[in-house]
Amino acid sequence: MPTEKIKRSDDYSQWYNNLVKNADLAEHSAVKGCMVIKPYGYAIWEKMQQELDKKFKETGHSNAYFPLFIPKSLFEAEEKNAEGFSKECAVVTHYRLKSDPENPGKLIVDPEAKLTEELVVRPTSEAIIWNTYRDWIQSYRDLPILINQWANVVRWEMKTRLFLRTTEFLWQEGHTAHATKEEAIIETRQMLDVYADFAEHFLGVPVIKGIKTANERFAGADDTYCIEGLMQDGKALQMGTSHFLGQNFAKAFDVKFQTKEGKLEHVWATSWGVSTRLMGALIMAHSDDEGLVLPPNVAPVQVVIVPIYKTEEEFARISEAAFHIKKELELKDVRVKFDSRDTHKPGYKFAEWEQKGVPVRIAIGPRDLENQTVEIARRDTKEKQTYSINDLSNKIIHLLSNIQENIYLKAKQFRDSNIHKADRWDEFKEILETSAGFISAHWDGTSETEIAIKEATKATIRCIPLNNHQEAGKCIFSGNPSTQRVLFAKAY
Amino acid sequence: MPTEKIKRSDDYSQWYNNLVKNADLAEHSAVKGCMVIKPYGYAIWEKMQQELDKKFKETGHSNAYFPLFIPKSLFEAEEKNAEGFSKECAVVTHYRLKSDPENPGKLIVDPEAKLTEELVVRPTSEAIIWNTYRDWIQSYRDLPILINQWANVVRWEMKTRLFLRTTEFLWQEGHTAHATKEEAIIETRQMLDVYADFAEHFLGVPVIKGIKTANERFAGADDTYCIEGLMQDGKALQMGTSHFLGQNFAKAFDVKFQTKEGKLEHVWATSWGVSTRLMGALIMAHSDDEGLVLPPNVAPVQVVIVPIYKTEEEFARISEAAFHIKKELELKDVRVKFDSRDTHKPGYKFAEWEQKGVPVRIAIGPRDLENQTVEIARRDTKEKQTYSINDLSNKIIHLLSNIQENIYLKAKQFRDSNIHKADRWDEFKEILETSAGFISAHWDGTSETEIAIKEATKATIRCIPLNNHQEAGKCIFSGNPSTQRVLFAKAY
Repeated sequence: MPTEKIKRSDDYSQWYNNLVKNADLAEHSAVKGCMVIKPYGYAIWEKMQQELDKKFKETGHSNAYFPLFIPKSLFEAEEKNAEGFSKECAVVTHYRLKSDPENPGKLIVDPEAKLTEELVVRPTSEAIIWNTYRDWIQSYRDLPILINQWANVVRWEMKTRLFLRTTEFLWQEGHTAHATKEEAIIETRQMLDVYADFAEHFLGVPVIKGIKTANERFAGADDTYCIEGLMQDGKALQMGTSHFLGQNFAKAFDVKFQTKEGKLEHVWATSWGVSTRLMGALIMAHSDDEGLVLPPNVAPVQVVIVPIYKTEEEFARISEAAFHIKKELELKDVRVKFDSRDTHKPGYKFAEWEQKGVPVRIAIGPRDLENQTVEIARRDTKEKQTYSINDLSNKIIHLLSNIQENIYLKAKQFRDSNIHKADRWDEFKEILETSAGFISAHWDGTSETEIAIKEATKATIRCIPLNNHQEAGKCIFSGNPSTQRVLFAKAY
Repeated sequence: MPTEKIKRSDDYSQWYNNLVKNADLAEHSAVKGCMVIKPYGYAIWEKMQQELDKKFKETGHSNAYFPLFIPKSLFEAEEKNAEGFSKECAVVTHYRLKSDPENPGKLIVDPEAKLTEELVVRPTSEAIIWNTYRDWIQSYRDLPILINQWANVVRWEMKTRLFLRTTEFLWQEGHTAHATKEEAIIETRQMLDVYADFAEHFLGVPVIKGIKTANERFAGADDTYCIEGLMQDGKALQMGTSHFLGQNFAKAFDVKFQTKEGKLEHVWATSWGVSTRLMGALIMAHSDDEGLVLPPNVAPVQVVIVPIYKTEEEFARISEAAFHIKKELELKDVRVKFDSRDTHKPGYKFAEWEQKGVPVRIAIGPRDLENQTVEIARRDTKEKQTYSINDLSNKIIHLLSNIQENIYLKAKQFRDSNIHKADRWDEFKEILETSAGFISAHWDGTSETEIAIKEATKATIRCIPLNNHQEAGKCIFSGNPSTQRVLFAKAY
């Protein structure tokens, strides 16, 4: 249970760290930069996985599994990708330990077990997968290949934050192969839509769909599409990316196919991924000073029932009512927990489940039994209300649906009211220093300007929104002509 | 599609390799000893995962996730465990690559990015988990901890076989902590029962539950329980293990708890796991010279519908009937595929689905439409029969249930008829050279004898069966007195 109660307005970053700890989501491990995902945090991740996996399968994808390790020579093959990831690679160089002759009971790396070729622990799997696809693809009949993988990846990070940036993280990575450029672009955009729909309707986090500038593109992609969410501190968070890889990996790994017309052509590729970083987005978009706020869709426990009693006899009667309510709700696929622990008082339980973000709490006391009522508290608004137990399960289902909607609308209102237009540089800087949020401003389209703005303000171009309105203007920084506004923000 | 048709009786090992390839289950990767699990193989693994995960949750376990890497100093802490796995560890020594100044476009390990402490890629997670549990456990109120993890692990293997023995494999590992020895032993046995039940009723593979000898015990365990299956070539396969770890890890990692009485005691532990090796068991227990034979419970596709037609008009009418049948079956949770490909002939499709082990094939031709019938072929017995489409879905469900049962009974009959009693050493050797299978024989209980028998015959003690019959006898090898028979076999 919480010892320190830090408010968002005091120190947002410390509030986040405490919440992750107090809600029992994750913790740092003995391995620098790697986290332990605790059972309650993992249960939320499992809910995300199930929903995403369903959506991937509905759009025709299958799961498969490729090796954790990538031989260095394969890793090098696509030069931009290799360059982009080489500085953060864990490298396996040996395959055996041996007893340390100097220190009994201790082990040392066996110098005789040095690998002839080092293995990179995958930071992403394009290289090993496209090396495999070469053998799978001969003809247009072998296309498309629509594969997803659930896996762990490693990117060596110097500065880490639980869920947001860790050396090892869990993710899914889709890797598809297509006969035409058009089909690959349609796939890239389709998966972006899948992610956006998931973020908004499942996690309740409104997102802006857009395209990254060349600077922010995935190493090895021709185009990177993204969804960007806004956290309560006014910083943006990239929640998912979908890459159109062109023929870059097909060329690097010599993957060609025979077209219907008998010509030999390189294959077109996409890749797309979301990770345990989504846990960070979920936490920071909705939670409050009391702890986690979970949209019902992603909550491992949607309804908790807490008995209020003094005597054993009261407990027995309340339990009977609680089990009845639980059973009714479970028949309608609601996830319910009856917190019957006799080691803790109701007040403690209330605080604990509040901290863990359970959307609906039902309290039942002896007077409720008499009146045939229960007390309902919703986590998002903290409103309490007395409900008759008549037709309770349908009322709860309706309430859960309201909560899901309300959490989304609240986040959307916050996001929408934090997209600021800026037309002058001093205005741009002032917004960043005060309310933050997204800034919609003209940009001259050059990398130089983008980098200069980043150096001056730490704000980056989060994306060029899809179907962006075209209008003539002047770059916020250089004053050079611009054809459209782009979205800037400080970001995680 | 298959090019080489090798029979089990010709070369069992080559038959297995071809089947894995032809049924599209897995293949070797560019990384020595690591496999690519292809979509169809992975779909079978997903079915196993879902069922096991459900059983773990029903028995009160939660999933969590611990780091891939184990710092060397933690890995060393439990000495027997460290000794057991040190010879097969992939070791990360560096965290960065850099451009090779001598070879433009190539990368080398950056010597300046050497880790001060090497990281072992987990061969199993006791060390990192028990190091974490130390912070989670103070009082008896914190116990039991019942956690499972789905993960990849790495054990460096010199000689590998797809699914059966690979350097990287997928598995689940349960790690539980208990206040008493009795409770830990009950947990160990409970999970063994979960595995046995899963193997028999889901995979259709009969198993013998038993306990390993000291020689064959998990490194760091006080007792290792196992389930052992028998493959069609008469070799045994260890399909799952459940370890009673005593207080070994609690002592190595200093994990103590305060008892109800206020004393400080070390915690009791278990761990248990099954892996993608189960795919090997599934294949080798049931499949035949035509390919894979899948029990319906684990089959990604339980029923395939193949249309037989000449004209477009026939195809349209058959499709209509097929969709109707498919829908009826899906309403009853049967997994159905309608193979409407116009690129392949029915004969090709028949062979392909046979090779992939789909339990039931429905063929529909123009004459079937007239007669209101379909042709049903079951994969396990290869019997064909004509069914009226009247009430077809219930008949198919009944058939699937029959097939599940029949596959199990056939494997059980084979297994039971291949448990041989041997009372003389020449008899023991002769059985191993002819029919193989399990040999039930007296053993004097010493490691020396166990090792001598292994060296002489390659047979090992697979287990001492649970609730083993006690009888006086003489050791098959040494002639020394023995109190019980144990099960020997050559094994994978």
